[in-house]
Amino acid sequence: MGNYGELDELAINTIRLLAVDATFHANSGHPGAPMGMAPVAHVLFNKFMSFNPKNPKWPNRDRFVLSNGHGCMLQYALLHLFGYALSMDDLKHFRHVDSITPGHPESHDTPGIEVTTGPLGQGFSNAVGLAIAQAHTGGVFNKPGFDLFNNHTYVFFGDGCAMEGIASEAASLAGHLQLGNLICIYDDNHISIDGDTKVSFTEDVTKRFEAYGWHTQWVQHGDNDYDAIEQAIQKAKDVTDKPSMIKLTTTIGFGSLHQGTGAVHGSALKKDDIVQVKKKFGFDPEKSFVVPQPVYDMYHKHAADGAAKEQEWNSLLEKYSSEHKELAEQLKRRLTGDLPKGWQEKLPTYKPTDPAIASRKLSESVLEAIHEVVPELLSGSADLTGSNNTRWKNAVDFQPPSLGIGDWTGRYLRYGVREHGMAAIMNGMSAYGTIIPASGTFLNFVSYAAGAVRLSSLSHQRVIYIATHDSIGLGEDGPTHQPIETLAHFRALPNMMVWRPADGNETSAAYYMALTSKETPSILALTRQNLPQLEASSIEGAIKGGYTALEDKNAQITLVSTGSEVSICLEAVKYLKDNNNIVARVASLPCWEVFDAQSKEYRLSVIPDGIPSMSVEVMTTLGWEKYSHDQFGLNRFGASGAYKDVYKKFEFTPEGIAKRAVATVDFWKDVKPIRSPINRAFTQLI
Amino acid sequence: MGNYGELDELAINTIRLLAVDATFHANSGHPGAPMGMAPVAHVLFNKFMSFNPKNPKWPNRDRFVLSNGHGCMLQYALLHLFGYALSMDDLKHFRHVDSITPGHPESHDTPGIEVTTGPLGQGFSNAVGLAIAQAHTGGVFNKPGFDLFNNHTYVFFGDGCAMEGIASEAASLAGHLQLGNLICIYDDNHISIDGDTKVSFTEDVTKRFEAYGWHTQWVQHGDNDYDAIEQAIQKAKDVTDKPSMIKLTTTIGFGSLHQGTGAVHGSALKKDDIVQVKKKFGFDPEKSFVVPQPVYDMYHKHAADGAAKEQEWNSLLEKYSSEHKELAEQLKRRLTGDLPKGWQEKLPTYKPTDPAIASRKLSESVLEAIHEVVPELLSGSADLTGSNNTRWKNAVDFQPPSLGIGDWTGRYLRYGVREHGMAAIMNGMSAYGTIIPASGTFLNFVSYAAGAVRLSSLSHQRVIYIATHDSIGLGEDGPTHQPIETLAHFRALPNMMVWRPADGNETSAAYYMALTSKETPSILALTRQNLPQLEASSIEGAIKGGYTALEDKNAQITLVSTGSEVSICLEAVKYLKDNNNIVARVASLPCWEVFDAQSKEYRLSVIPDGIPSMSVEVMTTLGWEKYSHDQFGLNRFGASGAYKDVYKKFEFTPEGIAKRAVATVDFWKDVKPIRSPINRAFTQLI
Repeated sequence: MGNYGELDELAINTIRLLAVDATFHANSGHPGAPMGMAPVAHVLFNKFMSFNPKNPKWPNRDRFVLSNGHGCMLQYALLHLFGYALSMDDLKHFRHVDSITPGHPESHDTPGIEVTTGPLGQGFSNAVGLAIAQAHTGGVFNKPGFDLFNNHTYVFFGDGCAMEGIASEAASLAGHLQLGNLICIYDDNHISIDGDTKVSFTEDVTKRFEAYGWHTQWVQHGDNDYDAIEQAIQKAKDVTDKPSMIKLTTTIGFGSLHQGTGAVHGSALKKDDIVQVKKKFGFDPEKSFVVPQPVYDMYHKHAADGAAKEQEWNSLLEKYSSEHKELAEQLKRRLTGDLPKGWQEKLPTYKPTDPAIASRKLSESVLEAIHEVVPELLSGSADLTGSNNTRWKNAVDFQPPSLGIGDWTGRYLRYGVREHGMAAIMNGMSAYGTIIPASGTFLNFVSYAAGAVRLSSLSHQRVIYIATHDSIGLGEDGPTHQPIETLAHFRALPNMMVWRPADGNETSAAYYMALTSKETPSILALTRQNLPQLEASSIEGAIKGGYTALEDKNAQITLVSTGSEVSICLEAVKYLKDNNNIVARVASLPCWEVFDAQSKEYRLSVIPDGIPSMSVEVMTTLGWEKYSHDQFGLNRFGASGAYKDVYKKFEFTPEGIAKRAVATVDFWKDVKPIRSPINRAFTQLI
Repeated sequence: MGNYGELDELAINTIRLLAVDATFHANSGHPGAPMGMAPVAHVLFNKFMSFNPKNPKWPNRDRFVLSNGHGCMLQYALLHLFGYALSMDDLKHFRHVDSITPGHPESHDTPGIEVTTGPLGQGFSNAVGLAIAQAHTGGVFNKPGFDLFNNHTYVFFGDGCAMEGIASEAASLAGHLQLGNLICIYDDNHISIDGDTKVSFTEDVTKRFEAYGWHTQWVQHGDNDYDAIEQAIQKAKDVTDKPSMIKLTTTIGFGSLHQGTGAVHGSALKKDDIVQVKKKFGFDPEKSFVVPQPVYDMYHKHAADGAAKEQEWNSLLEKYSSEHKELAEQLKRRLTGDLPKGWQEKLPTYKPTDPAIASRKLSESVLEAIHEVVPELLSGSADLTGSNNTRWKNAVDFQPPSLGIGDWTGRYLRYGVREHGMAAIMNGMSAYGTIIPASGTFLNFVSYAAGAVRLSSLSHQRVIYIATHDSIGLGEDGPTHQPIETLAHFRALPNMMVWRPADGNETSAAYYMALTSKETPSILALTRQNLPQLEASSIEGAIKGGYTALEDKNAQITLVSTGSEVSICLEAVKYLKDNNNIVARVASLPCWEVFDAQSKEYRLSVIPDGIPSMSVEVMTTLGWEKYSHDQFGLNRFGASGAYKDVYKKFEFTPEGIAKRAVATVDFWKDVKPIRSPINRAFTQLI
């Protein structure tokens, strides 16, 4: 057993049995992974990781990510044992409503959880983001004698994560970026939910990671060769120019009568099995949730060492504050999540006489204008830089210096054609605490990233999706690239701001809200085609999520619209007056999520009682019933052609809008009273 | 030049220049890939592929997939030159509205296009599905002397596809499955939209494919070593126990002044560049869209050879029809897309007195009941077999026989934890023409597959997503696994049937519609928790997408609901009567897409005028305004806990529903007339 003795064994078995007891108590959950990975968890946490349970947010702590999040009782047990604010009672409430020990780890609610995992492949990819953030933050702030940011990021992942494409994307990019502080431990237990992985997963995982440019090792006896585990992790730390993958062969459900089989993967152990495993490990089979005091003592000592390291770091930061005053101030500010005072004065504003510009270009102008005053902004693209307009002119690429095409301080990340990986990496970067990631792809391909976008929302990450080519207005690329369902999808996602600005001021407003909402991600849907600057638009109006773009007290109908269709609605108002003698007003609603948060009085001023409203947006009408009596949209796929031809084909013209507005006015004339859809019978649970 | 002479060179340059002319004419598109890949396209199509342009649907044709679909002018040029129903005029209308030559290839509209590509990684993964379908169809129908299905599937893919996680998933599974008839040619041109791939993509692709278990080769001079290309393809064909990947190093935009750079990737060549390339290739720089007659002649001869091969095959099928009568009849029927007469009589039906059963189990009962009469049904799961209940008892796994755990005739595919790959593979299997693929994951993780699900709809594939654990009702796994936005997302997708059945008869109805809708995919959202059998439910009612689940002519409100909430609504009716003296009726709306296709009269009978309606569904309310005046749903993330506790927390109980129904009745009492939301001012474009 080399450096390891009985106390280590006792600690490892304590972890295993806490997982056994908690899953039994909850009558659900996954004991197998915790029982198999307890040894490596013990070695990693107790020998290598620096953290302070009393301050889980110490900026230079080592990060740990359990990508196989279903094994979260492993992590909850560790957090409890090391002294995080996670009590034995919390373990007993594993998987109970309103506990801080839910079925999969959630970073927003549980101290010590870095990122929300469970959906497979996400945690692994988040870890790549955490490692990028460390390299970048170190690159920006570390100075000779001040190695402020040098933490490691450790990941556990299983066969499920290894099979997911998102993890392949992230691993390929991590290899390219030579992320030396990233150490990933692959739980090679040959079991997934369908049983033996031989039924679907027979590739050579190690060779694949080598192909990505990773350093790889194999620990053959992960159940009991603690020394080999330690040596492998140490070796991985010593390799500083490549990320490391350690294949660790373990026995899932180690100790159970059904160890090594699918039976221990996703169900609690049976009573008799629990009795025998407790006996085998020298524990009292009659007792549950037992932690021997020496185990607490050992782990609390390690925690105290971590607290001391934080103290040292704090002293270093104080010294740094006098020697590198400005940087220190910037760092401290960035850690609060606040932006620098007055940054918003740099946001571009526009007059109606300014030329028509595509909102993807307007977005570029924002980035150009603010990147110097918002140094935490790190932009990028999934290989669409020239189309997404995500790169400011003098941007430096974030690249390993050895490639000669950028460095660690670079604030432009070329993610490659890896949308899902990109989104999860951004979540990890945001979780690190010093960066606001923004990155681009076509709106249609944000859908490739849906799994990770969902976790941006659920885990309250401030990430910005710059989603250009936002409709049929992209033209020639055709239906495969033209979003129809996409905005409805993300508008239905809780805690997500979907912005579709109509002009320059609205684009600036979208950035203002995206950057200042510390706990809400944003999708900015931007056009390829040019948009005129609107008469009534202002940043102040648009940051309310919706405002009156054209008022008329005599209006017979409100046209409610977003983005590229707002200006067409304004033309339709003239057309209606001239041709149909109908008076219309226009509401611009660039962000529903934000609009919904305004007072009812304000919302009713934008979409008033007494007249019908009709929505106009060149995509699905689904959801627009919330703000309108009738809806003009596109509940079919688009068409490939010049954008003006495509708009004409689907009648998104002043005439086409007017025709439907006339029908709407006519249809509602016999209803009394006509209530604005803003009025609801009851309030939703949120 | 070995076996290749001037005519080959001429043909290759003809292809290149058609791409140059068409992109110039359209003023958009991607000339680079066609110019770089014209040599391999010529060798592959003219030396290896068997197809009959006069019958693009010949069942045993070789399949070709252009996964880098943006290079579609390559494919359109080939289709034209070989004599498919794609004229020179169609080439001139490249990327014009309503042409059959859209910006990316669409299988539904253009003869000779096997699958819809463009969104990167999809085509590659579709090809894995096409190859699986070939292996399975051959396994089922081939007999000694009757090698009816032995076609190859060829794919071109570029760096973009190689970076996408979906392609990694599909490649890993293809290696596991030892798909010997799959040959993929990787256009290693070192250029993607951001320029040189060295900025983000430096992995060893060949080594990665070896890790997956593929046979790999490298053709170093893909621009001009036609013999080497031919030899590599031949060698790939000779390797029959592994899929093959040929890395072909080419020069993007070969012949252009900007060849080998990002400048030729996604924009038409400039005029002067076109002049010089035409001169260089010996073409008249003043002329456009030129095809020398000898090129037509050569290709038409190959097409005629293909037509002759089809004739031989037809004769073989005739002979087969007499020797293997039943199989031949089955095959011919399967090729029409029709199901066997009377198959639907096997669908389970339920009485109200039957026990409560989870709809994932009801789905299993359907599969158990029909799998013998619907032999084209091929089920599977993304590593959730025991949770999705997708496997009938005596199912055989689809596996390479050498593994000893199944064979090619197997009708159960273990996709591994690869949701996106699975969906795209199903699209490919469906496109083959002899299989109806169905496969499972949790509803929440259908979102991982969103990119491919969209293409199921756009390309009219009959694929069935068995999406279990459809709501917060999954309980303990918690918010990371509980769908909120998912149904809204897919309900907004055109040509997609989203089913959320409330009981056994509705589940059978969902399968009836999913299996008989030849051009529409389906998502079946199914519960983990038990559901009672409803009084008024029937297959006949449910196949209308919506029906009256409880009628009362005196009703003051309609409760509109789906799935697990319908039975709670029925309880709420009693509660309302007993506690509030309010009479309510209930509409069950298991599938909006199908309900919307019914007559207005019928729809108004389900959601009538004169009284308000309130929707009840435990997820986003977005979209429900279409069918209701007020909405009770969950516009936030769920919670981890026993499902009954979670339902109670969010008030999805008879009391909780009643409380809101009372508010709704009260809220609408002063409006006259109360119109059913079925009434609309105008008809949507579809």
